[in-house]
Amino acid sequence: MPPKPLDYESINENVKKAQYAVRGELYLRASELQTEGKKIIFTNVGNPHALGQKPLTFPRQVVALCQAPFLLDDPNAGLLFPADAIARAKHYLSLTSGGLGAYSDSRGLPGIRKEVAEFIHRRDGYPSDPELIYLTDGASKGVMQILNTIIGGPGDGILVPVPQYPLYSATIALLGGSLVPYYLEETANWGLDTTELRRSVAQARSKGINVKAMVIINPGNPTGQCLSEANVRDILRFCYEENLVVLGDEVYQQNIYQDERPFVSAKKVLMDLGEPLSKEVQLISFHTVSKGYWGECGQRGGYFEMTNIPPETVDEIYKIASIALSPNVSAQIFMGLMVNPPKPGDISYDQYFSESQGILQSLRRRARIMTDGFNSCKNVVCNFTEGAMYSFPQIRLPPRAIEVAKQAGKVPDVFYCLKLLEATGISTVPGSGFGQKEGYILFHLFSDGYPLFYTFFYAIHKQ
Amino acid sequence: MPPKPLDYESINENVKKAQYAVRGELYLRASELQTEGKKIIFTNVGNPHALGQKPLTFPRQVVALCQAPFLLDDPNAGLLFPADAIARAKHYLSLTSGGLGAYSDSRGLPGIRKEVAEFIHRRDGYPSDPELIYLTDGASKGVMQILNTIIGGPGDGILVPVPQYPLYSATIALLGGSLVPYYLEETANWGLDTTELRRSVAQARSKGINVKAMVIINPGNPTGQCLSEANVRDILRFCYEENLVVLGDEVYQQNIYQDERPFVSAKKVLMDLGEPLSKEVQLISFHTVSKGYWGECGQRGGYFEMTNIPPETVDEIYKIASIALSPNVSAQIFMGLMVNPPKPGDISYDQYFSESQGILQSLRRRARIMTDGFNSCKNVVCNFTEGAMYSFPQIRLPPRAIEVAKQAGKVPDVFYCLKLLEATGISTVPGSGFGQKEGYILFHLFSDGYPLFYTFFYAIHKQ
Repeated sequence: MPPKPLDYESINENVKKAQYAVRGELYLRASELQTEGKKIIFTNVGNPHALGQKPLTFPRQVVALCQAPFLLDDPNAGLLFPADAIARAKHYLSLTSGGLGAYSDSRGLPGIRKEVAEFIHRRDGYPSDPELIYLTDGASKGVMQILNTIIGGPGDGILVPVPQYPLYSATIALLGGSLVPYYLEETANWGLDTTELRRSVAQARSKGINVKAMVIINPGNPTGQCLSEANVRDILRFCYEENLVVLGDEVYQQNIYQDERPFVSAKKVLMDLGEPLSKEVQLISFHTVSKGYWGECGQRGGYFEMTNIPPETVDEIYKIASIALSPNVSAQIFMGLMVNPPKPGDISYDQYFSESQGILQSLRRRARIMTDGFNSCKNVVCNFTEGAMYSFPQIRLPPRAIEVAKQAGKVPDVFYCLKLLEATGISTVPGSGFGQKEGYILFHLFSDGYPLFYTFFYAIHKQ
Repeated sequence: MPPKPLDYESINENVKKAQYAVRGELYLRASELQTEGKKIIFTNVGNPHALGQKPLTFPRQVVALCQAPFLLDDPNAGLLFPADAIARAKHYLSLTSGGLGAYSDSRGLPGIRKEVAEFIHRRDGYPSDPELIYLTDGASKGVMQILNTIIGGPGDGILVPVPQYPLYSATIALLGGSLVPYYLEETANWGLDTTELRRSVAQARSKGINVKAMVIINPGNPTGQCLSEANVRDILRFCYEENLVVLGDEVYQQNIYQDERPFVSAKKVLMDLGEPLSKEVQLISFHTVSKGYWGECGQRGGYFEMTNIPPETVDEIYKIASIALSPNVSAQIFMGLMVNPPKPGDISYDQYFSESQGILQSLRRRARIMTDGFNSCKNVVCNFTEGAMYSFPQIRLPPRAIEVAKQAGKVPDVFYCLKLLEATGISTVPGSGFGQKEGYILFHLFSDGYPLFYTFFYAIHKQ
């Protein structure tokens, strides 16, 4: 009997090739243990609300009212909702054509894209065009759509940092393109060096790969570094010289835990560089409601902004977005609220300010405690988590542990993380899942929570 | 200067090839006119809330409370929300790990997948396994994911009905597969004939295409027919003989406007057929919160159920779903509510019942009025809209109109629809966008609203 079309041997080979470590073997085992009744702390993915972070009140009030527009005329609404939330809900509903239950334009609601453009203008000091901003169901969906536009076959290469967030490697594999790795230098605080970039591009080209784009994750995931303005400038010059599209993954732009290197967007640095670069370098920048002090992962909201992309391509991207009709409308409203939060003088401002600053300060404290804690341990080193939401320590395993792992047929870091999971219930991601260099007798762990810190170290000492 | 990677000539050729008429030239022109201040009635896509349909109250109350969980403990909540909505919100929040702001499992919340399985069991009389139900951001995303799993290259073919909803043709083009058309017979009430299926498969195979799957849209989009049980049985037998996966697009299963042929799912018919078919035929069934009497398009909620798909493939589909982390959680809750609405005796039952029946009866009336209206016109014929949300009349154009269209360089039906748009503000989709047979001196229009009916006919008489 011949195999059926959805038997494993028949399906799309690229589907099989795609690997996604953040929800890979470790996550699956953790889910199993959870089903068996074990308490699991999932630190494999940045999911703050799952670890107890409370949502910001004001945006939730506004979106709740948008879901229940019949409350807007209820005289009792004022008992549960502040007047500025009611006003804002009316504002956002007026931007829709039929409320949250109607498809929006496939690019997102025009009024919210305008608010995003105004935010970018305020942030960077350069105007932004709403027609070049598309709202998406989370930043991941935007990244996937843009990679799908760029990659036409196995000869098309994308420069991706290593260690990297596996969205990139998985999507490139799924689309049948070629991942071209560039290595971040751990001893230079995960810095990015153009010599390494040139080496990587030259090597790929010598294999016949047409390198088309470069991914920058700033602040870094999982490495946590914040790129300096000078570094971003060098990268943009490099991409200009090498004719590469820049994919700027800037979803952690609110998550900054030091004052020396504030976040500067790739768009701003590009505009600062002036012509010809500011008119020539093709840049797509991604943002989300899932990170920052919002952490609204489950809402699935994001946007991308296109710079120096010709109108014909913008139209093609629009056409493809149309196939799935529209991003979910409630997350579009979260995006509007994120770029346009309560202002001083608004009824809800004080609460919004104290909630958001509380979260940010707490993350800042945890970044310090995590790093210091790791570095106080024997055989563990960890760069300071300057930004994003993760610590990525290097843990040197004794040769015997590596031997035991090999006997079990496991990559050593995977073996260690599985043991850590079984012993403590903490679900992490081994560094090899991020493509960290091979041949090291060390590995990386991944965690984003202060509450985990002590348990975590207990586990390490016990091993 | 060489082209840049996101210049039109450089991008993925499959992106350029994909056509999506529902939001194509007509829609773009309608959007332009709207920007210029003209009142446009968008009937190009089934988007009931945009045409004034009110959302059902109970589900909106529940989701609003889930967005604002701090209200659940507010003593005033009872002034705005009935007790059963409050209880249900607590229930759904208990199924999440961190509320609507936390990513769920990439397959959707286990508790809601269980409710979907129970619904399918009640509907079909056969048990359904929650592990084989994946929640998605609308049915379209599910269809795209499954087609991506099936299509590995240009030799992989998918049988698609013509006229068809262009999600299928667009996605197949984007994935670089081959669309294998089978024609629905307008004179037999858009019926589906296995002789035609065999012809189509044989022809494709003679061209070297490996036909792997067959799409059935039931009730039909845009054709509105409801398949008889006998017809579905024939199709399943055909797919068994030809080793085809069945993709059952059943998003209009609540939208039935006659009593002779109630909706019967492909899953039930398959199980009724017994072995070997019930154990052999691979079937994926799709459903959504966007249609029915819900019409919650903008929420982007859906699911697919997998039947006879081996576990290795189910795991691969899970892995790919993981790349985008999770479907939006609030739409998952809408799906839970849709499959598990208020029951007789619940506080909100009477309101829910009267609202949902009101919408359904209104759609039923409109289906009749639309069809009768079309058929009362000269040179217009239209099959009765038995289900779904669209009328698809055939309009015979005079030879001179066709001549004028050709002189303007337009396909006649596109030309007519553009004229209709300019004259009346009604945005429709020409039949050629659905791949309707060529060589006809006729075309099809697409509409889903009673309120449009008279305007619409006025336009036709004016032409």
